[in-house]
Amino acid sequence: MNTELTGHSLLGNLTVKESGATFRAINPGNDEPLEPEYHQLAGSSVDAVVAQAKAAFPVYSSKTGAQRAEFLRQIAANIEGVIESLVERMPAETALPEPRVRGESGRTAGQLRMFADLIEEGSWQDARIDTADPDRQPIPKPDVRSHLQPLGPIVVFCASNFPLAFSVAGGDTAAALAAGCPVIVKAHHSHPGTAELVGQAVMKAVASCQMPDGTFALVYGSGREIGTALVQHSAVKAVGFTGSRGGGTALMKAAAARPEPIPVFAEMSSINPVVVLSEALHAHSDQLAQGLHGSVTLGLGQFCTNPGLVFLPEGEAATAFTETLKSLFDETAKGCSLNQGIAESYRAATAASAALAQAGVVVHTANTAPDGGSACQVGPALFQVSAKAFLANEALHQEAFGPATTLVTYRNESDLVEALESLEGQLTGTIHGTQADLSGASTIIAALKSRVGRLLFGGFPTGVEVCHAMVHGGPYPSTSDGRSTSVGTMAIQRFVRAVCYQNAPDSLLPEALQNENPLKLQRLVNGQSTKESL
Amino acid sequence: MNTELTGHSLLGNLTVKESGATFRAINPGNDEPLEPEYHQLAGSSVDAVVAQAKAAFPVYSSKTGAQRAEFLRQIAANIEGVIESLVERMPAETALPEPRVRGESGRTAGQLRMFADLIEEGSWQDARIDTADPDRQPIPKPDVRSHLQPLGPIVVFCASNFPLAFSVAGGDTAAALAAGCPVIVKAHHSHPGTAELVGQAVMKAVASCQMPDGTFALVYGSGREIGTALVQHSAVKAVGFTGSRGGGTALMKAAAARPEPIPVFAEMSSINPVVVLSEALHAHSDQLAQGLHGSVTLGLGQFCTNPGLVFLPEGEAATAFTETLKSLFDETAKGCSLNQGIAESYRAATAASAALAQAGVVVHTANTAPDGGSACQVGPALFQVSAKAFLANEALHQEAFGPATTLVTYRNESDLVEALESLEGQLTGTIHGTQADLSGASTIIAALKSRVGRLLFGGFPTGVEVCHAMVHGGPYPSTSDGRSTSVGTMAIQRFVRAVCYQNAPDSLLPEALQNENPLKLQRLVNGQSTKESL
Repeated sequence: MNTELTGHSLLGNLTVKESGATFRAINPGNDEPLEPEYHQLAGSSVDAVVAQAKAAFPVYSSKTGAQRAEFLRQIAANIEGVIESLVERMPAETALPEPRVRGESGRTAGQLRMFADLIEEGSWQDARIDTADPDRQPIPKPDVRSHLQPLGPIVVFCASNFPLAFSVAGGDTAAALAAGCPVIVKAHHSHPGTAELVGQAVMKAVASCQMPDGTFALVYGSGREIGTALVQHSAVKAVGFTGSRGGGTALMKAAAARPEPIPVFAEMSSINPVVVLSEALHAHSDQLAQGLHGSVTLGLGQFCTNPGLVFLPEGEAATAFTETLKSLFDETAKGCSLNQGIAESYRAATAASAALAQAGVVVHTANTAPDGGSACQVGPALFQVSAKAFLANEALHQEAFGPATTLVTYRNESDLVEALESLEGQLTGTIHGTQADLSGASTIIAALKSRVGRLLFGGFPTGVEVCHAMVHGGPYPSTSDGRSTSVGTMAIQRFVRAVCYQNAPDSLLPEALQNENPLKLQRLVNGQSTKESL
Repeated sequence: MNTELTGHSLLGNLTVKESGATFRAINPGNDEPLEPEYHQLAGSSVDAVVAQAKAAFPVYSSKTGAQRAEFLRQIAANIEGVIESLVERMPAETALPEPRVRGESGRTAGQLRMFADLIEEGSWQDARIDTADPDRQPIPKPDVRSHLQPLGPIVVFCASNFPLAFSVAGGDTAAALAAGCPVIVKAHHSHPGTAELVGQAVMKAVASCQMPDGTFALVYGSGREIGTALVQHSAVKAVGFTGSRGGGTALMKAAAARPEPIPVFAEMSSINPVVVLSEALHAHSDQLAQGLHGSVTLGLGQFCTNPGLVFLPEGEAATAFTETLKSLFDETAKGCSLNQGIAESYRAATAASAALAQAGVVVHTANTAPDGGSACQVGPALFQVSAKAFLANEALHQEAFGPATTLVTYRNESDLVEALESLEGQLTGTIHGTQADLSGASTIIAALKSRVGRLLFGGFPTGVEVCHAMVHGGPYPSTSDGRSTSVGTMAIQRFVRAVCYQNAPDSLLPEALQNENPLKLQRLVNGQSTKESL
């Protein structure tokens, strides 16, 4: 595969104008710009890009599940085909190491294949059939059948921290394409070359699988201008975003202000509380400290599931645990952030916590200022505060996107529950307890559960399994709409709506709803789940 | 059952302040006020009402499906127990006739029992289990299990046009209570007594089924003050609304502007296009005219599924059809609208169409001004216009809430498709065609389908079957969020979110997710739909 980078949006045969503005990726390892220059799309071209996706929609959405599955599998294979180019380019753009590139590439391809399997099997459509009863009194009962159908063109914004798995061909793109929606991807300014490599892989699959032009597009441009224009365009029907709270809420506002409001699935910020109960702390102190340290510093803490808050019962066990943890943090080398913006935000957030000494915040390990190296260098940070002081300081409730965590000591259950109930919505919550701890912790578990999308018993929240039951989404502001997930097969539900047919001739029904059940789907027929034909 | 009307909000044991402002229902038949006076809640009391619902949430949501099912069935029985009081009060408040009261009461009780059956069976929770694989490389696979859980307190606004089925114990209330959410109902000013009768029936069930105080509340107050305050309250987690586009969009804005935005399920306006194809018009002209007339004038046209737009192929057959339809409309007696506001809006909408004579609108039957009787009297209206003129006049795309319809004549398929594609989102679309008509109509069907939630082949859209497959919701603005329905069992999905458990001990899992499958649910276990235990 030719993987030469062009520096332009990938729009198939569409000819568009560029604005004249260009940018280059910056290598966070040495602050040097990388070739090639990337050319930003002109705002006046947004209409043509969306029109192409709109025109593709009826054709692409009419492809069978098997055809779309083949397309997704081809994208996966094409991404694997450029793995060596990714291994070369992605670390230069993001400072992420080669094993991460290979791992994230595997996860991305795996997600695409998972959705391929899902749509090839087909039961995800939630086909429902209520058959007619012409003799019913006082009026005949009609035949009513429904299933899930794609919404239309979707805009997906690449994430800074997952250049593959939450970007060009990441979870939202895979879910939307699986559902039958064309996708327009807005590249992230910090890894345009990685985006182009993956975009080329998708474009090759569009061509070889004979999908219509406009099924996929990759766009370079300013988020404020091009990103907003895409979200505001009348033919766009939903938005996927993973990034900052400021960016996500701006898109939510733009989408809500449209003449036709559309859903925005924005994954924003989360501090992922970990609750350690008393017996567990006594029994597994060192193991917990090592596990926590590993989770906080994994990938330099640049995960939305980073455990940024750890609740410990006050006392000697907490002191011993903290000492162990502090020595692990102190021994941890600095690392290079994904980009300067993230490094600056992390420095500001850790400095804000460190400045709260008067308010009771103890700094065990400080994120020291860079002593040489690039501007992206940051170090781990470990803070401690009482539950009471935590409650009093709003700043301690905010995400510090990097290898930082804050230990919060509680005196008793009501202290802990009050602190948990003060938290905003979170992607995850974790509880460490022995059997005896947990048997008396129903109030604590309930408080934690009410705040999260995923509740872990033991372990740590980093590492999100891609499966049917996964919920990677939680109450606001961890996700704009806590009723959905961005990981796992349920993510396909973001980009569909139910449509029902009343008294339709069998031949005009979609195959999913025909009497013979030619697709062999699991369906709800008169309230009974079955694979049988009628 | 004592069905004396008190004129006060129903809040259980809660003591609250009222604002001092009062109102009485107006009998639309004679413009006379009805006793008793209804006392509006003070804005300062909203907090206490919501706090009670919030306190009820953990208790109510922990009840088993069987317990909540018993509660819903008791509500249904209690509503049936006050049917004679409803038959006395509701016509006086709404001008709806006794058979409608009995029919809508039956539908309301039926809906409650349908949700009772759904939650007693339990598989609606979408339980998913992905089991662990500790030996997986490079990292062990965790055990992940998810199901749907209730959101929290819900606010439901009563609809003017369905005092029972879309009001106090209507679809949204039944769905939310079924899901495990406490409900706060805001009564509609035009039928407060009907609301109180049903509210008392619900309150009796709360008591006899030993549900916590705050499981249900019925509030009287100004929509602008009390309604908005309820939607803005931080403990409220979703909103159900059926009414005007102005009212619905105001609630959407208030909900989107909250620090924590919440979903609003507003059903607003729809003109429900009916497409008649050529052979069908020739073959069934009189039958179509009679069916259309019956659907447009049913319940004085005060249904959100009223067919307000009928596309006919230009020519002699259309002329003959129109003459038949006109004579049916001319013979139709005037009727009494639900309230003065609706009568005034209908007069304004029909006058706006009639004023477009210059733009090609023909008035076949005019909604003549009232010649005596109450201010709520309105008559049927029948308009005709070419597809070209229809496209040029935005006013013709707006809902006239009453017994009016507009015939739109098209010259050819592209005329028709262009007109269909110009429509906003609709609850329903209907197509009348013979087998030959339909076999060549795929472009027309696709255009119509893209605009609607329910696609009918033959028949008319009034009459919404309450069943598993029903979709009563469509693209904006027919519904604020076209991904959901307000009728049928899928409506429960409005008020839930998925929560997942990772590596939870079996004893701490909800029963729906335990290995033994004690509730005998249909579950997705490692991707396979099954009722088996693990």
